[in-house]
Amino acid sequence: MKVKTVSLDVGGKYVVILSREDAENLGLRPLDRALVECGGKTATAIVDVSSVFSPGEIGVNPDLKAKLGASDGSEASVKPQPKPESVDFIKKKIRGGRLRYREIRKIVEDVVHRRLSDIELAAFVTALQTRGLSMDEVEFLSRSMIETGSTLRFGGTVVDKHSIGGIPGDKTSMVLVPIVASSGLTIPKTSSRSITSPAGTADRMEVLAPVEHEIDEIKEIVEKTGGCLVWGGALDLAPADDAFIRVEHPLGMDPLLLPSIISKKKAVNSEFVVIDIPTGRGAKVKTIGAAQELAEDFIELGKRMGLKIKCAATFGEQPLGRGVGPALEAREVLLTLEGRGPGDLVEKAVGLAGILFSMTGKGDERTARTLLEKKALGKMKEIIEAQGGDPEVRPDDIPVGEKTARIRAEADGRVLWIKNPELASIAKEAGAPKHKGAGIYLHRKIGEKVRKGDVLFTIHAEKSTKLENAVSLVQEYEPYGIGRRYGEKMILKTVPSERPHKRIFILER
Amino acid sequence: MKVKTVSLDVGGKYVVILSREDAENLGLRPLDRALVECGGKTATAIVDVSSVFSPGEIGVNPDLKAKLGASDGSEASVKPQPKPESVDFIKKKIRGGRLRYREIRKIVEDVVHRRLSDIELAAFVTALQTRGLSMDEVEFLSRSMIETGSTLRFGGTVVDKHSIGGIPGDKTSMVLVPIVASSGLTIPKTSSRSITSPAGTADRMEVLAPVEHEIDEIKEIVEKTGGCLVWGGALDLAPADDAFIRVEHPLGMDPLLLPSIISKKKAVNSEFVVIDIPTGRGAKVKTIGAAQELAEDFIELGKRMGLKIKCAATFGEQPLGRGVGPALEAREVLLTLEGRGPGDLVEKAVGLAGILFSMTGKGDERTARTLLEKKALGKMKEIIEAQGGDPEVRPDDIPVGEKTARIRAEADGRVLWIKNPELASIAKEAGAPKHKGAGIYLHRKIGEKVRKGDVLFTIHAEKSTKLENAVSLVQEYEPYGIGRRYGEKMILKTVPSERPHKRIFILER
Repeated sequence: MKVKTVSLDVGGKYVVILSREDAENLGLRPLDRALVECGGKTATAIVDVSSVFSPGEIGVNPDLKAKLGASDGSEASVKPQPKPESVDFIKKKIRGGRLRYREIRKIVEDVVHRRLSDIELAAFVTALQTRGLSMDEVEFLSRSMIETGSTLRFGGTVVDKHSIGGIPGDKTSMVLVPIVASSGLTIPKTSSRSITSPAGTADRMEVLAPVEHEIDEIKEIVEKTGGCLVWGGALDLAPADDAFIRVEHPLGMDPLLLPSIISKKKAVNSEFVVIDIPTGRGAKVKTIGAAQELAEDFIELGKRMGLKIKCAATFGEQPLGRGVGPALEAREVLLTLEGRGPGDLVEKAVGLAGILFSMTGKGDERTARTLLEKKALGKMKEIIEAQGGDPEVRPDDIPVGEKTARIRAEADGRVLWIKNPELASIAKEAGAPKHKGAGIYLHRKIGEKVRKGDVLFTIHAEKSTKLENAVSLVQEYEPYGIGRRYGEKMILKTVPSERPHKRIFILER
Repeated sequence: MKVKTVSLDVGGKYVVILSREDAENLGLRPLDRALVECGGKTATAIVDVSSVFSPGEIGVNPDLKAKLGASDGSEASVKPQPKPESVDFIKKKIRGGRLRYREIRKIVEDVVHRRLSDIELAAFVTALQTRGLSMDEVEFLSRSMIETGSTLRFGGTVVDKHSIGGIPGDKTSMVLVPIVASSGLTIPKTSSRSITSPAGTADRMEVLAPVEHEIDEIKEIVEKTGGCLVWGGALDLAPADDAFIRVEHPLGMDPLLLPSIISKKKAVNSEFVVIDIPTGRGAKVKTIGAAQELAEDFIELGKRMGLKIKCAATFGEQPLGRGVGPALEAREVLLTLEGRGPGDLVEKAVGLAGILFSMTGKGDERTARTLLEKKALGKMKEIIEAQGGDPEVRPDDIPVGEKTARIRAEADGRVLWIKNPELASIAKEAGAPKHKGAGIYLHRKIGEKVRKGDVLFTIHAEKSTKLENAVSLVQEYEPYGIGRRYGEKMILKTVPSERPHKRIFILER
């Protein structure tokens, strides 16, 4: 059959499109699997059927075309493929069974080789979410995700830090990495871009230096400076994770949190890892009890995987620092390294770095504080330079969105609460993270006094329409609670209400 | 933007394809939703992104093109649509919540209007399967599925029969409908085609007469004859069901069994329904206890929906009658109506018809037996003629696959068991239901004596390659168990074994 390119992106899957006649003759229906062979190369593709294709023609999407090394007009053959065995294991999980190593390994392999349809993948992730995972299953998933991807080896004592996410403006990694790297430990930090938040660490760091590097470049950066702050997306570390996230994200599920994080840390050869669990009403984890549970799971998984882990439940009731959005946050990081940062950010970075120091015998929180004062700025400049940025950048050099709106208090009192997810949505509506300068600057945080008319926060945008949309969300969400004292404002919400309470879930690892 | 047709079938969903630039400017990613407007008509479509499209161009799939009444070069506009509210309700079910009427109604509406992605749909169905449904939820689903589709009204006392399926060769409806229609009751039987089985009732009936009719034609057929045996697929009765089945099928799930069946019966105005629950190791329902449970659910749902229901657990350990495959089964139906049918088929048809007669005060099983002897053949001829077939067709007129293979007993003894799903797979491998003449004829059934070398069953195929494939499956599956007495052959399977035990699940309603 003759290849014809059809240019569709379908989340990295391989798709082959057949004419109705050929599909019928081959006994193939949409969503079935077929083995496509072209010039000696083969791939398993998901079948689609189209009335426009003529018998003898097949459509291939660009990913499949690349995989087969095919071009328009190439000769290819198509034959039906049975369902992969892993579909039986997915069914087993749906029925409530516990999966064995071999079964999970097969599922993860088929995910990486794109042999599962969206329906099968979504059913698997949903079954994990609703049936729950045993610690064995978590371990098998972690191992399989590592084994089906690339790994990186670094010299020295390799440590890492990770946050389970959910707090707007959480720029801790960018302060912690230079502190830790300046102690002589190796910290090859890979991060994600924002999935649903106003900025991921890769988005923030990109304001200061390029973050997309090849594996060899990363090795060189880390060898030179002891650390890095790069985007992990294209490094093929635990590649199954991307496929899982694609399915988890639309439904706000996160059953693979533990294997996802641990497989990525283990794939870069980390020995000691500190995990930040932001805890609070507006965070992913609502209570200290739940944080304790999660922490114990992390520690047990670490033991099974040969990884020393400490977890810290951190105060997660409000954004960290005052800036939310890539440029505002990058600016705040530089200020912090210059000794002019907000207290909560300093405390968190120093506290978590101190945990890594005590785990590795390098010292404690005081060590971290001293390094922040004396060496971290210099180290950050080294890292920025090694990644190809301008090491001499100053906070004021960083442009932030010039269209601004100030949101003011409507009464005297104190800030009693701040709604995290709602603030994140407002920052995104303003354009973050795509517009680097867009975001929010918080003038008041929880516990601070305000007088009627004081500015609570400023919204920054690069485009006026974005700014207007963000402002109209403020009306809807009421992100700040102001009152004279706790207990004064007891009604959080009325039902029925004209203001819908949005369930927002920030998925970022 | 200018419309360009991209011919892709994606299970009836609307898809709009944007250039990378336009997608980025609109803030749209693959799997997001967009409102597409063209000439005053609008539709919500799932977004895809393609590098081949130029800014200002959009691709639309044929379903979307038809919905918008667009043609190549039409001007259209695209704007981002938020996630439908129903996604929140799907998340609620994933978390284990119980859904209210309003929530379920919204989900079903969005399914029918194709506003949900495959991922969301698969997650919903998987959550229903793993979390289970309350009877309230089953009722709300049934109501919503009816309310979002068409309904049909017939005169007289409207009755119906339904099998939950799973037994190869189950041609009961084609014998029961003429019995019931000849009593003066109205039985507008709509059936599905095969989804995973060797033949659905629509496939069997199609050997004798056309089964695809418009709603008006069906009304006419039923007014004239009191019954029909037509394909229900294009009638828009409970259309959400097709979308659910598309997702259930690849994973062998069936959480919507009750609402799926009851909504279709209610949509054609049935008052009395008998439900056949084939029960046995090779059937969907394995034990009488499980059949009892399911029957009580059906009856309670019927009460809530204003439908009188009786259920019958029927012997489901082997195929019904001797023919499996469209033509072999149609032939057997005619033989049965001529008084020469196999005992099990006669007993089942007469028994289930008798239940309908006692529910409606028309008589009992004896009434059914008399009608089968005296009137059913004449009534079937009327129905065949009204549907546009040849009423004078005789069993021997029906061609069956001429390529045949006889499978013989390897020892003396009795047939101790027959594997239903495995026999179904062999019949499908032989070409059924696409090749109407393909299938299996069973010479021996459970309990019957065999001598070494006796023919157990004959495989019929229209093509020799199909026949060969079917024969090789026989080796793998060993569909017959032969022994001198029960207890003689105690080892059913050894583990590990070279012969994989296939989990096969027949989904047909």
